[in-house]
Amino acid sequence: MNASRNPLCARLGIELPVVLAPLGGESASAALVAAVSNAGGLGILGAAYMTPARMDEVLAEIRSLTDKPFGVNLFCPQEWKCDAAREAAFVAQLSVYHAELGMAAPQIPERFEEDFESQFDTVLKAAPAVFTFTFGDLGRDRIAALQQRGTQVWGTATQVREAVHLASLGVDGIVAQGAEAGAHRGTFLGSRDEGLVGTIALVPQVVDAVKVPVVAAGGIADARGVGAVQALGASAAAAGTVFLLADECPISSAYREALQQGQDHETVMTRAFSGRWARGLDNRFMREFAAAELPDFPIPNALTRPLRQAAGKAGRAEFLSLWAGQAVALSKRAPAAEIVKNLAAGWRDE
Amino acid sequence: MNASRNPLCARLGIELPVVLAPLGGESASAALVAAVSNAGGLGILGAAYMTPARMDEVLAEIRSLTDKPFGVNLFCPQEWKCDAAREAAFVAQLSVYHAELGMAAPQIPERFEEDFESQFDTVLKAAPAVFTFTFGDLGRDRIAALQQRGTQVWGTATQVREAVHLASLGVDGIVAQGAEAGAHRGTFLGSRDEGLVGTIALVPQVVDAVKVPVVAAGGIADARGVGAVQALGASAAAAGTVFLLADECPISSAYREALQQGQDHETVMTRAFSGRWARGLDNRFMREFAAAELPDFPIPNALTRPLRQAAGKAGRAEFLSLWAGQAVALSKRAPAAEIVKNLAAGWRDE
Repeated sequence: MNASRNPLCARLGIELPVVLAPLGGESASAALVAAVSNAGGLGILGAAYMTPARMDEVLAEIRSLTDKPFGVNLFCPQEWKCDAAREAAFVAQLSVYHAELGMAAPQIPERFEEDFESQFDTVLKAAPAVFTFTFGDLGRDRIAALQQRGTQVWGTATQVREAVHLASLGVDGIVAQGAEAGAHRGTFLGSRDEGLVGTIALVPQVVDAVKVPVVAAGGIADARGVGAVQALGASAAAAGTVFLLADECPISSAYREALQQGQDHETVMTRAFSGRWARGLDNRFMREFAAAELPDFPIPNALTRPLRQAAGKAGRAEFLSLWAGQAVALSKRAPAAEIVKNLAAGWRDE
Repeated sequence: MNASRNPLCARLGIELPVVLAPLGGESASAALVAAVSNAGGLGILGAAYMTPARMDEVLAEIRSLTDKPFGVNLFCPQEWKCDAAREAAFVAQLSVYHAELGMAAPQIPERFEEDFESQFDTVLKAAPAVFTFTFGDLGRDRIAALQQRGTQVWGTATQVREAVHLASLGVDGIVAQGAEAGAHRGTFLGSRDEGLVGTIALVPQVVDAVKVPVVAAGGIADARGVGAVQALGASAAAAGTVFLLADECPISSAYREALQQGQDHETVMTRAFSGRWARGLDNRFMREFAAAELPDFPIPNALTRPLRQAAGKAGRAEFLSLWAGQAVALSKRAPAAEIVKNLAAGWRDE
């Protein structure tokens, strides 16, 4: 494609309108982010669960692997409160799984989440080409501070009114996250339907509602999805699930095998692993917590981390957060550069 | 566009790959079906709630208005059983609404649904260009009988395995209904996630899984949606909600006004009106039945009909089944021919 005709690509200095959605936790990888950027797309690091020190290391590693633009994503801090009864019930159930894996009983961690101020300062200092945020409102001052350092800022919207709100704060772009997307929903202004608007309906409505470029996410796993979101008016396509199968992505083999189960394996929405709605492949953990009154995000996320790490090593997919979008069955294992090339083949020169 | 390059259009003898999704109940209209077909698309009559005698009348009216191909849709019969306690609770709640509108107390109707055999024989005799069915498995014999009369048969799928099953029965096409679609879900093989797969994820997977043409439905309300589903591999695009605002569509003004509320009004999934999952604009009726144990489809549908008819006349949208898809805010009032033309503008010659 002719990148100069795509304003988003031209402004970022990237060749292809293909974005690596920010994969976090065990899926976060400097090698994958760099490989996507080196292939002409835009790699984005999911740094929400990293300490600032770890962020520094990973950002340095990315820069050692590429001199191309890349991005960093963080979760905006959420209000949450402790509820002793819910936490006790959650830990009791977790204890059963710990015992099954021969692990010590669950411990309450020193903290449930990283310090956002320190994470944000790390990004500000690193000045990546793009910063994206999820779960809410970064605030005008932080957006302006990033922009003054040369970092473009994109906010994540799952509903038109969220996109309008983010645009009013001065963001440079909107990631429109359709209901098909894997992992956490970015919904932050409330919704009677959990913000589950499909990509084909959401993207053109967001494009009409804001003046900044729109990056479409949700259900895009091959060239056809990229062609579709171009037709809907998006300036670029973001894909996550398909990159979980990139050779460079360091997920456990149990997770990788679950993703490759084949046609028509279903994804479901769950709050079980983190306390926030997210989409993944159905498994025992999700089913057994389906009716539970869960502690607020991020408490379950912190409490389940040791179990998820042990289950990954033990090959026990029933205890893993198997995040995946609805196009998972279109995803195939390949080097990241090949995935980027396959996706970009769907974009037509205008 | 050059219709001869689109096999679905060529086989049907239509100019444009635009299909009117089968609107039923008060939205069913010979004038609308004929207007879509006269404009070069394919009108489909939603006949599920019509007596065979009424079907004969409406089919004759369509034929008096157009000599172009058109289609008819029916619901395949579902197994259902009576549950006296649930019915009594449902009628008790309905009685409150009847009283508010000054109506007599709800009556148990003579029958809860039309006789499918007679409806089917009416279609067979009429031999429309296309017959489409929803909610399941029409059976090989009926499919073959229609095909022998020159009627093409399309089945409705919301999941890949449903599409594969329908193709194995010998259908001529698959309507792939994404989660964004308004009104009833066609899901018939069960699902942990209610069959809510978004159009952008569903369509390419169905295209890969079957050899017959795929008609994409769900979230398509303007040229951009049509361009998107073409990129996904569909052979035509079906739209429903946008045609509710066609001048020819005989919906109540209360329903029409609700559809035109503007940006970001939300749709939700509900079983409240019929006993089966369907998507519509949130209202009081849906909210007050949200937690209820409902009788099986089609019992609530039959029981709520008098209330819906009275509420339409009285302008009380809170008691109407305000079926709408997630692209409702992209829909604008216009003559049907203009809507067809606007949609078809999104299809590119290959």
